[in-house]
Amino acid sequence: MDVGAWRHVFKLDPNKPLSDAALEAVCESGTDAIVIGGTDGVTFDNTVELLARVRRYAVPCVQEISSLEAVAPGFDGYLVPLVLNARDPDWLLRPHVEAIRRLGRLIRWDELVVEGYIVLNPEAKVARLTQSDTALDAEMAAAYATLAERLLSLPVVYLEYSGTRGDVALVRRVRRALERARLFYGGGVDDPEVAREMARVADTVVVGNAVYTNLRGALATVAAVKETPVNAADA
Amino acid sequence: MDVGAWRHVFKLDPNKPLSDAALEAVCESGTDAIVIGGTDGVTFDNTVELLARVRRYAVPCVQEISSLEAVAPGFDGYLVPLVLNARDPDWLLRPHVEAIRRLGRLIRWDELVVEGYIVLNPEAKVARLTQSDTALDAEMAAAYATLAERLLSLPVVYLEYSGTRGDVALVRRVRRALERARLFYGGGVDDPEVAREMARVADTVVVGNAVYTNLRGALATVAAVKETPVNAADA
Repeated sequence: MDVGAWRHVFKLDPNKPLSDAALEAVCESGTDAIVIGGTDGVTFDNTVELLARVRRYAVPCVQEISSLEAVAPGFDGYLVPLVLNARDPDWLLRPHVEAIRRLGRLIRWDELVVEGYIVLNPEAKVARLTQSDTALDAEMAAAYATLAERLLSLPVVYLEYSGTRGDVALVRRVRRALERARLFYGGGVDDPEVAREMARVADTVVVGNAVYTNLRGALATVAAVKETPVNAADA
Repeated sequence: MDVGAWRHVFKLDPNKPLSDAALEAVCESGTDAIVIGGTDGVTFDNTVELLARVRRYAVPCVQEISSLEAVAPGFDGYLVPLVLNARDPDWLLRPHVEAIRRLGRLIRWDELVVEGYIVLNPEAKVARLTQSDTALDAEMAAAYATLAERLLSLPVVYLEYSGTRGDVALVRRVRRALERARLFYGGGVDDPEVAREMARVADTVVVGNAVYTNLRGALATVAAVKETPVNAADA
């Protein structure tokens, strides 16, 4: 799993139906990877089922772990979210500690990539679940990103606007704060225009919901992202 | 600041009086470093004053940062505690984010070492301040340590029993869980016997309170630690 090479990824939710034709279009779109994960209703069974369907195609497929019960073998790698701005202490490090306690030596550390999430849409399920402090201005978001990169050595910072479009100026500010970590952006990317806007300020653009609500728009984001160079300098 | 070479350190509290003779004995004891820091009453002024006094001697001197206001220039390095088992979200990552926001580009990252604290004495000030979940068995403590080492890439795990003697079996279990991070042990080390016991299971033994309550015993811990090899295999 080489997240450093990902410019565009699709995130598929095992709890949402997707036709074979839609899945084929997504997997053959030229995206760099398929991420399987979601906030609720994700189980071992629906995860494995979706993985099996994606495996018909050559695209890399990784799991983003949201609950230990759903962790399935056979992915090309595993993303481990750490919600940096969670206010509920049961969500900040505790699930990770419990998972380590339970799995122990079974964990293959070199297959894991930790993502430092900064959750920014207060209406998103993940924000409510973790009681995230989403009222961050660009400077605070950049400080969280620097913490992730410098104090915690996380390889990925993930700006999560799931369900809404992000503040481009904030994303740009965060990108400029980072020197080593890769910046993932997710939220509201459902057409080529938004995709280009976010591709300019983020290293990796994640397209999720649009697969289910606007497949044509979602598919068009692949080329839009790939033809856009990152340029996070001030406008 | 090469914490990897520290076998024994003294931790001095700028808020506690220490005679010149006692300070000289501590600094000339053969300890590997002097750490300046404390939980309360630590100010810029008393920190700088103590640093100036320690600087008469050749021993390395680092600051353990407990409040941004007390951060002083001129140390050989800075230790940044991160209380992994804090339950108060204002203590887990928030102070670090606020500090990054305020200091920004002034921070010299290569002078910092992040310590993953696991606070284990419920009566200690730091435990109450951070609402630490101190009721951890050896397996949970080891899981926290693995989280620190593997997910957060922290160079130091610090078992903090301040005010009491630690559970040797728990310390040993944590030490065995670590492959790269250095294990600091602090708490109740006030004579050579305890020092040897902890030196067997921890990489670095921190002696703090004893300097103020039992100087002779504290000074005798240096040789005791240095003559003891680490051997965390099961007894």
